[in-house]
Amino acid sequence: MKLVTVGGSDAGISAALRALELDPTVEVTVIAEDAYPNFSICGIPYYLSGEVHAWTDLAHRSRDDLEALGIKLRLDTRVTGIDTQRHRVRCEASGAVDEVAWDRLVIATGAVPIAPPIAGLDVARGGDRVFFVHTIADARAIMARLEATSVRQALVIGAGYIGLELADGLTTRGVNVQQIEAQPQILATVDAPLATLLANELVANGVELSTNTLATSISVDDRSIRVTTVDARTGQVRVLTAEIAIVVTGVRPSTELAVAAGARLGTSGAIWVDRRMQTGVSDLFAAGDCVITHHQMLGESYLPLGTTAHKQGRIAGAQAVGHTGEEFMGVVGTQVVKVFGQVIARTGLTEAEAERVGFTPLTVLASTDDHKRYYPGAETLSITITGDRLTHRLLGVAMLGPISGAVHKRIDVAALALHGAMTIDELLALDLAYTPPLGTPWDALQVTASQWLSALGDGSHRLASPSPDRIMP
Amino acid sequence: MKLVTVGGSDAGISAALRALELDPTVEVTVIAEDAYPNFSICGIPYYLSGEVHAWTDLAHRSRDDLEALGIKLRLDTRVTGIDTQRHRVRCEASGAVDEVAWDRLVIATGAVPIAPPIAGLDVARGGDRVFFVHTIADARAIMARLEATSVRQALVIGAGYIGLELADGLTTRGVNVQQIEAQPQILATVDAPLATLLANELVANGVELSTNTLATSISVDDRSIRVTTVDARTGQVRVLTAEIAIVVTGVRPSTELAVAAGARLGTSGAIWVDRRMQTGVSDLFAAGDCVITHHQMLGESYLPLGTTAHKQGRIAGAQAVGHTGEEFMGVVGTQVVKVFGQVIARTGLTEAEAERVGFTPLTVLASTDDHKRYYPGAETLSITITGDRLTHRLLGVAMLGPISGAVHKRIDVAALALHGAMTIDELLALDLAYTPPLGTPWDALQVTASQWLSALGDGSHRLASPSPDRIMP
Repeated sequence: MKLVTVGGSDAGISAALRALELDPTVEVTVIAEDAYPNFSICGIPYYLSGEVHAWTDLAHRSRDDLEALGIKLRLDTRVTGIDTQRHRVRCEASGAVDEVAWDRLVIATGAVPIAPPIAGLDVARGGDRVFFVHTIADARAIMARLEATSVRQALVIGAGYIGLELADGLTTRGVNVQQIEAQPQILATVDAPLATLLANELVANGVELSTNTLATSISVDDRSIRVTTVDARTGQVRVLTAEIAIVVTGVRPSTELAVAAGARLGTSGAIWVDRRMQTGVSDLFAAGDCVITHHQMLGESYLPLGTTAHKQGRIAGAQAVGHTGEEFMGVVGTQVVKVFGQVIARTGLTEAEAERVGFTPLTVLASTDDHKRYYPGAETLSITITGDRLTHRLLGVAMLGPISGAVHKRIDVAALALHGAMTIDELLALDLAYTPPLGTPWDALQVTASQWLSALGDGSHRLASPSPDRIMP
Repeated sequence: MKLVTVGGSDAGISAALRALELDPTVEVTVIAEDAYPNFSICGIPYYLSGEVHAWTDLAHRSRDDLEALGIKLRLDTRVTGIDTQRHRVRCEASGAVDEVAWDRLVIATGAVPIAPPIAGLDVARGGDRVFFVHTIADARAIMARLEATSVRQALVIGAGYIGLELADGLTTRGVNVQQIEAQPQILATVDAPLATLLANELVANGVELSTNTLATSISVDDRSIRVTTVDARTGQVRVLTAEIAIVVTGVRPSTELAVAAGARLGTSGAIWVDRRMQTGVSDLFAAGDCVITHHQMLGESYLPLGTTAHKQGRIAGAQAVGHTGEEFMGVVGTQVVKVFGQVIARTGLTEAEAERVGFTPLTVLASTDDHKRYYPGAETLSITITGDRLTHRLLGVAMLGPISGAVHKRIDVAALALHGAMTIDELLALDLAYTPPLGTPWDALQVTASQWLSALGDGSHRLASPSPDRIMP
């Protein structure tokens, strides 16, 4: 049996490995457009920062590792078409064209950066000063630029997860960073109060941050980049200059091959798949950043993330070798990012999302200690809980705190509560770990839950910030 | 309405505060045997270590705070009897006797240290060199001894949670610590492999640890303490000397008052209560270290912990003022302790416990990275998962890792999985947070779950340590 994956990143490789694990006799070929199969794209900001010394360190596994595991690699190879009748893909590599036969095909073509409507961007991208950042090739090109001349001033366009990591990383490298964001807040995936606290962390670390700021045009001469911006509220125009500009304003799914093969599209133009990662076209699976994501609270959505790509790829690989019992259970929207010394994370819905899908949400913001204050090093966590006023169902949690505050795993506790469709009352009953150097007898999430219940009782409206808790020390 | 709590620690104060929160008109009196209401007993090791500078810092709330919240305090007052007919408690304070009237009574008398069968211990305890550690008065007496002469050599008898915290704390203080444990391993609440790793941490930090070692007699002269020990395997006798000895070999519930009032006892001789913290005697509730604990997997058990005392007290307080809907949902056995630079935590059942209650357990030990190894500072987590071979139900998780590894909240994720009665297969589907500086695309718990499933497939017996995972980077 021949399994071919179109794409050599998280979803493609996960599918290949899982198929081989379940059936060592399957012949697996991974076809990748570039020379970097199985790299951690999420690690690029830490390479650019200098914290990861060599781009080769970003490989989850080396080519040798992959081949030793039984995967045949076809690199620098573009798939130009899928023939579903003859079960072949057409490939181009270094001008040569050939075909690869498959019994099962996993489309894992990923996503591509969205080019925002900035006049001159297409031309500017052609040079060596204005970049998107999506592939290891991008990362190497950016690094070449950073190292070629002593770059002192960078402009980051966009302040979502990757934009924030880049602002952190370039600052860590010693580059001055200006960052602009078209929306009124950075990181649209969390409610405004936490986003504001996070913005303070950027500013405290020297990032010149402007929200409500649209880039309208960009030009490059031999001395610098000039970006014209407009304030979305006032209409005020400013011109920013920088030696390097990185555009990180989101991605869109790469679907052309799948569509040509007869797959249909779903939310956000991503490839529609069922929970078995089947496209509906016989023997054709798809996984990763190119497909829709089943969200346990929102239904069909599009949320391209490495964690999800790994899970979907694993299932596609299992399904491809006949393990039909393995299905994708869906996400709850868990994300985390480190920005300088702070970590921000969310799971579930924001208040706005909750309203949009018909809940009657109340969101409470609490400030709590990460551990007993009498023990040295206690830090403040800022936590929002969004719940439904009518049913008390937990809808979403977001958290901000220092790296030592374990925000990245505290959010996972909330994620499990969402997986379990718990109420906020039930959070108070959870048997969570406590020792004074690391926690509080009522965990920070429980303190916030208690404050949510109090705010509900007080008839609070919109975002509530109750007074410090009297009941839970 | 008059609510009285007998006991001023976690359970008693939680009951008082919750009752007042729900019904500000209730008259609440807290009667405490000592002068230290609402102290964090769990903090004592950190006071003895010097990390917490003043014992007063261990107060969750000051007396003034409590009184400002509407609680009447009767301190240094011993309750000598409960009259359930006349709804009175008899009190003794400074030789004076009186009565306090109640409509609802919460017994929160806690636990007392178990005195192990060591010849001479009763006499030795009378002096100022051999201590139990259970109250703030104990802590102050130990501190007086530590400060009076320059104590260089301590003996800690027992290596459970508190014994380990004391070994850490006294070493941190600069005292040499010998520690003996009668059982073959320290920390009987985790399976042996993790306990062994933790023992290495003690030894690496200079603790002279002897397991399988029983203290048989103790004597004190004006120069030192002499403790005779016997090796449980070889019968070899040794005499240890120290300037201070602390006995921490567990606690038993303090139940005399409740029994005299007609309450019945349950597991381990603790006061039996239902999920509403009712004793069965009219208007008589009980909570905290003196009562049984409903365990979601073991049923009725005894597991005295601060977190549970807070929850049970809160429910007793709500019930006492007529909020009958609030019931104790039960624990899953979550515990955590920091020992020098390592954190060890567990939730659910050990393999031995799982066997005892009729499961067919398999336990797998995995070593995983806390975050992507390419990012600086990655550390190894050691994780055991115990699951039922037949149903794949998750039965227990234990973890050991450095403080930066977030073990204390990773264990909470496992606790929620137990609360949800999840299978190990389901762990792989969880939407957990990932960013390279703080995690891995498959979370460490998921990597371990995957290895459990592999080990099951391989027909592994007993504790399995599979080879490093090929599939989950």
